[in-house]
Order: sequence, then C-alpha cells, then structure tokens
Amino acid sequence: MSDRLMPPTLRFMLAARRSELDGLEGLAATCELVTLISQLVHALQRERGYSNIYLGSQHEDHRAQLDLHTEQASALAEDVQQRLLSMDLEASSAADRARLFNRIAYVLHGFGELPGLRRRIRERVLSPLDATAALTRLIGGLLAVVFEAADTAIDPSITRVLVALFNFMQGKELAGQERATGVAGFSAGFFDANLHERILHLAQSQERCFQTFSDFADPQALTLWRTLQASTETTQVARLREVALRTSASHPVDPGLSQLWFELYSQRIDAMQAVEQHLAEQLLSTCRQSIKHAHADLDNHRVLLQRLASLETMGCGDARLFSVQATDLDSPAPDGHGPQMGRSLLDLLQAQTHRLQDANLQLDEARQALNERKLVERAKQLLMKEFGLSENDAHGRLRQSAMSRGLRMVDMAQSMLAVAGKG
Amino acid sequence: MSDRLMPPTLRFMLAARRSELDGLEGLAATCELVTLISQLVHALQRERGYSNIYLGSQHEDHRAQLDLHTEQASALAEDVQQRLLSMDLEASSAADRARLFNRIAYVLHGFGELPGLRRRIRERVLSPLDATAALTRLIGGLLAVVFEAADTAIDPSITRVLVALFNFMQGKELAGQERATGVAGFSAGFFDANLHERILHLAQSQERCFQTFSDFADPQALTLWRTLQASTETTQVARLREVALRTSASHPVDPGLSQLWFELYSQRIDAMQAVEQHLAEQLLSTCRQSIKHAHADLDNHRVLLQRLASLETMGCGDARLFSVQATDLDSPAPDGHGPQMGRSLLDLLQAQTHRLQDANLQLDEARQALNERKLVERAKQLLMKEFGLSENDAHGRLRQSAMSRGLRMVDMAQSMLAVAGKG
Repeated sequence: MSDRLMPPTLRFMLAARRSELDGLEGLAATCELVTLISQLVHALQRERGYSNIYLGSQHEDHRAQLDLHTEQASALAEDVQQRLLSMDLEASSAADRARLFNRIAYVLHGFGELPGLRRRIRERVLSPLDATAALTRLIGGLLAVVFEAADTAIDPSITRVLVALFNFMQGKELAGQERATGVAGFSAGFFDANLHERILHLAQSQERCFQTFSDFADPQALTLWRTLQASTETTQVARLREVALRTSASHPVDPGLSQLWFELYSQRIDAMQAVEQHLAEQLLSTCRQSIKHAHADLDNHRVLLQRLASLETMGCGDARLFSVQATDLDSPAPDGHGPQMGRSLLDLLQAQTHRLQDANLQLDEARQALNERKLVERAKQLLMKEFGLSENDAHGRLRQSAMSRGLRMVDMAQSMLAVAGKG
Repeated sequence: MSDRLMPPTLRFMLAARRSELDGLEGLAATCELVTLISQLVHALQRERGYSNIYLGSQHEDHRAQLDLHTEQASALAEDVQQRLLSMDLEASSAADRARLFNRIAYVLHGFGELPGLRRRIRERVLSPLDATAALTRLIGGLLAVVFEAADTAIDPSITRVLVALFNFMQGKELAGQERATGVAGFSAGFFDANLHERILHLAQSQERCFQTFSDFADPQALTLWRTLQASTETTQVARLREVALRTSASHPVDPGLSQLWFELYSQRIDAMQAVEQHLAEQLLSTCRQSIKHAHADLDNHRVLLQRLASLETMGCGDARLFSVQATDLDSPAPDGHGPQMGRSLLDLLQAQTHRLQDANLQLDEARQALNERKLVERAKQLLMKEFGLSENDAHGRLRQSAMSRGLRMVDMAQSMLAVAGKG
C-alpha cells in the first residue's frame, strides 16, 4: 500500500518520522562542513602565527615557512568554499537557515579578501597587528558558522557534540590569541598594563570555554584533554605565562623568550588539534548513527502502520479501528482485536509524542550552553548602537567594564541589557 | 541580473532573507490553522457542556440544543480536517515539523472517533464523566497543536501572539473544566473533598495561564480581558465558587444552583471567546505585517545588492569591491568608492546579522514561557514510565504531590526530574 492510500492519522505519523529523518540528513551535511571548517581554522591560525613572525622580523628566511602555511590554508579554504557554493540555497524553508546563510555570506566575503591580504603581508605594508586582526576576523566568522550549526541542530546528541566542538574551537582560538599576545610582550621584553590584562583575560576566557567543552564532551575526548592538560607543554606554557606577568618596564626579560614561548605554545595548540580531530570524528559518527536509527525506525514504523492500515481495509478492524470507543482509550477493550489495534495505534502515537518531547527538552538544555555567547553578542550590539563603537571597541568596553567590577563578561552583559530594558 | 550571477556573498545574503520570508509564509498557514482550531475548540467546549447536561438529565428536551451544538462543532471540525489533509507533508524538511505532524495525527485520530462518541452519547450508554473525558482529550490534542505552533514559530512578534493565544485557550479550557466540575458538585448538592480540591486546582491553574497571557498580550487584548474580569458574570461566578467551597455532606445546597452556575459560567466563557477572537485576528494581522515587511526588505535588499554587483561587473568597484583591504574594515578608505562599497556591503551584512541575532534572542525569551508546560509533560512521562500510570493518573499524581507540598505543578515537576537525574 502506498503512503498516499493510508488513513490520514497514519500518514501524519509517518510524515513526522520522515521529517525528522530529512532534518537529520540536512544536519549531516552541515556537520561535514563543520569538520572541514575546523581544519581550515587550524591552518589559518598557523598562517596567522607565521605572518606575525614574518612581519615581526626583517629577514626573508621566514618567507618559505609562511608560504607553506599559506598554501595549506588556501587549499582548505578552497575545499570549504566549494562546499559552500554547492549548497542548495532553496532546499529548506526553515528560517533557522537565515542565520547560517548570513554567517556564510560573511565568510565568503572574507575568502574574497584573502589574496589581497596575503599580498600585502608579503609586501610588508601591513603591521603585524593589522594582519592578525584581519585573520582573526575571518576565523571569528568561521567560528560563527559552527555556532549557528550548533544552535540550529535538531538532534540532542548531535547538538551536544557541536556544543563541545564549538567551545573547544573557541578555546583554541583564544589560545592562539594568547600566543600572539605573548609574542608581542616577550619581543618587547616586558608586558605593559594592557598586554598584562589581555593575557589574564584570554587565560580566563579559555578556561570557561574548556569547562563548557568538558560538560558536553564524550569520555574519550575528556581523557585526551586531561592528558594534554597534564602534559609538559601545558606546564611549561603556564610557567612562561607567570614569568610574563611578573615583567614590567623596569623588570624586562630577554626578548629571546619570545621564540621559546611561540614554540611551546604552538606545540600545545597542535596537541589541541588532536582533541578537535577526535570531536570532529565523533560528530560525523554521531550523525551517521542518528541517521541509521531514524532510517530503521522509519522502516519499522512504516511496516507496523501498513499492517494496521491493511487490517482496516480487510475489514478486520472495521471503522472501529479508527473510531475506538472513548473508554478504550483508558482501558483495554473486552471484545476482539479491533479496539486493541486502536489501542496500539494510540500507544505508538503516544510513544512518538514522548520521544519527540524528550528530544526537544534535551535540545533546549544543550542550547542553554550557547546562551552565554548570545547575551554577550547582544550587549556588544547595544554598545555599538548607543556609543557608535566598532565591534572591537564594544568588545573591549564590555570586557573593561566586567573586569573593573570583577564580573564575568556574561554577567556584565546581562546587567547591561537589564539596565537598558532589553534583558 | 539574475540572482545566480551574483557574487556568492550577495547570493547568501539574499538567500538568508528569502529563507526568512519562506519561513514566515509557512508560519502564516499554520496561524490560519490555529485560528480555525480556536473556533473549533470553543464549539467542542459547548458540545461537551450540553452533552453533560443531556446525559445528566433524563429528559429528551435537551436533545435539540445538543444537536445544534454538535452540528456547529461538526462543521468546524470538517473545516479543520480539510485544511489538515491539504497540508503538504513533504514541503518542509525542518524537523520542527515532526512534533506538529505528530500532534495533528492525534487530532485526526480523535476526529475519527467523534461520530461513534456522539452516537453513544445519544444512546445514553456513556456516563457524563466518560463523555467529558473523551471530548477533553480531543480538545487537549487541539491545544497541543497550538502549543507546537507557538514553540516552532520563527518570528518573535508572531511567537508572542501565539504564546498569548495558547495560554488564553488553555485558561479558557480550564474554565470549561471548572464549569463541568461545578455542575457535578452542585447537582449532587455538595462538593466532596475531591471536587473541592479540583475546583481550587482549576482556579489556580487558570490564574497562571491568564497571567502568562497578560505578559504577552497586546494592549487591546489586555483591555478586553480586564473589562471581562471586572464584569458581573465574573463576580457572580466567583461568588458561587465561594458557596461551592463552603458546602459539605452535612451542609448541602439546593441542586437547582447547578443550572445557575452553568448559565453564569457559560456567559463568562462566551465572553472569553471575544478576547480569543481578538487574539486570533491579531495573530493573522501580525503575520500579514511580518510578511509585508519581509517582502519589502527582500526587494530593497535585492535592489541594493544588485547595484553593488553591477558596480563590480562594470569595473567601477573592480576586484577590490569584494576584496577590500583588511584595514578598510575598520576605517573609511581614503581613495574612491570601491572600498566604500565594500564598506557598505559589510554594513549591510552586519546589520542583517544583528537583526537576526536580536530576533533569535527575543524568540528565546518568548519561548521560555512555554517551558513550564514542557517540564510538567516530562514529569508526567516519567511517572507513566516508572509506575505504569495512564496519562490522566500521572497528571493526578503530580498534582496531588504538588498540592500536598504546597508547590506549583511546575516546581514539583522540576524537583521530580532532578531527583530522577533528568532535570
């Protein structure tokens, strides 16, 4: 019997299942994109590090290394771009796609800027700060795509992995920024108040990201992460960070520490990449599993529903199959299988309702972890609008206000929004 | 220039807008369904009331009134069913539709039961309690459709109206249940402990629903509601409720009060229908407005983006239009309009990002109001699974536990889930 000929109740039950499956398949494509993005971000972080070194020194001997990293990042950016351009923009009418598409538009714009940016780096007409800022913006745009993917995923187990991955990537990106800040401070011989504060802020923000990652990570990811945290590189980076924080104009250190810091920190970031790699694989295997389950469920469901429907057409269940007595709903019927079939249909329907509700609540719980970022973003927007600040300045202002009051960024954001009547 | 020929950044920006618009149009269809459902629920509530009266008396003189209400409800159910059956089940691949489809499957099943149920009522082979329970289940199924519509709507202003409407409908349904409970108590001459408790519970639950409605209603709906609350019927119903709560086996009242209670309460419920009608109109006009704005925005956006794109193809902006220098992102370019165009593209993109983020946060806020119901549903499921209870019994058990501890249902649900490690 074709689905079309089924009684309407059964058709809608099947449609609910099929809709879940379609959603999962769309999500799987997004997750593949996310794993590619995670590789690209890593390559861009390296390119950013070597661009800084190249621009910081006056030797051409760093050029070959830089070119190598640029080549790797270019190839990955090409992959990501191809995948983006092959997306079917009209496939889904879900409005949740609007935010994703918008973030992708920003990334594509950034890809367009890359050749010019790289040329200007090689011509040494950009300061290390400007080069870093430009690549940091692009990486931020890529992270925003991962964020939207996490925020719009519709399967709780996949959402959990995406929340873990997003927070890990974000923590790793903050680590990359700490590496750059450290290079600047050690190269100068000491950390002024501004660099000092920045190091502290970056270290704290990383900790929060990795905490959220830990809350959502699978046991294996957690083991990998704990091993990394107990490793020599981590201890050595922490030791150098303490040295950094003790420096001042009157107590400088040997600028040669800059190179050591960069190398140790790079080892740490490369080790992080292994955890990220594991999370990316976990993401893809979770997608595959969810799709496999949904397929099997849909097939079982279809067989069961068709059996119910054919009982009806054969007259075994007759009209009562779909018009059971009201009292049948609460108690087993005494007479024959007609009402019992009605009963099993309702059981099936109820089980599906409970499963969907449960998934929805678990989804809400996992998404809560993303709210912190949304509040901070919204407070930044408020500052940008009210004081005509750039995004960077708004971020700085929010951070300053939080630090001067001993608050976390998110709490500062929340109280700012509350004062503005928007919280 | 066709959209296809646009540079990818612009195509994705347009796709984001179009995706929003598509989502709104799908939402508008759901909202029309919701307004039809609100009328149907009202008719079914009347049919339920008159079924009770018919089953409670042994006279056939209530039969004509009952038939009239059945006829009205049947016609509306037919409208709703037609609309449901004409839904395109394959149109959207959003998984959010799964919950909606599942709720609709339940309603369609209930529609199939109606003819048999009505026959059995007329044959007087059902108790008033069973007849009420069957119609209450169907009404609950229809309310669940409205709930899912509210929970999956993607436009904050529409979500707000849906949250107000759902809570109002839910409050009105609880009022209908209180009316029936009162009829049972007054007919018996007094309210035993069970009926007493039930009246109190229904009165409190209504209050919570109408509070949430008030939090989200437009000013006009609020005025209508306050007028109704200050009306004679409301005062008189409240007075009779007090009388009801003072009765006992040793202090009975005249069973004739039953008819008075029913009539006064019915006037009150009919007056509620006017508020609901206003909310339904508000819902449709909000949909129309949102779609109109989104259309206008999309058109403006398309013109603006095409102007940007044609500047590029004409060579005015050249490659730099989409590959602005990194520093252009933070400061106006000194030389010509190329980078300025890049600048306005980024402005546009940023404005769109902020608008989408803002809408998303507002959406989250409005949906929070629906979480209470989700927690209660989940706790009920837990009880059903753990103790093999029916849905009704689980609800009763949860209500009892809450009352005996002086807690609200939602707080009891939350602590139950926490104890079970599922909170």
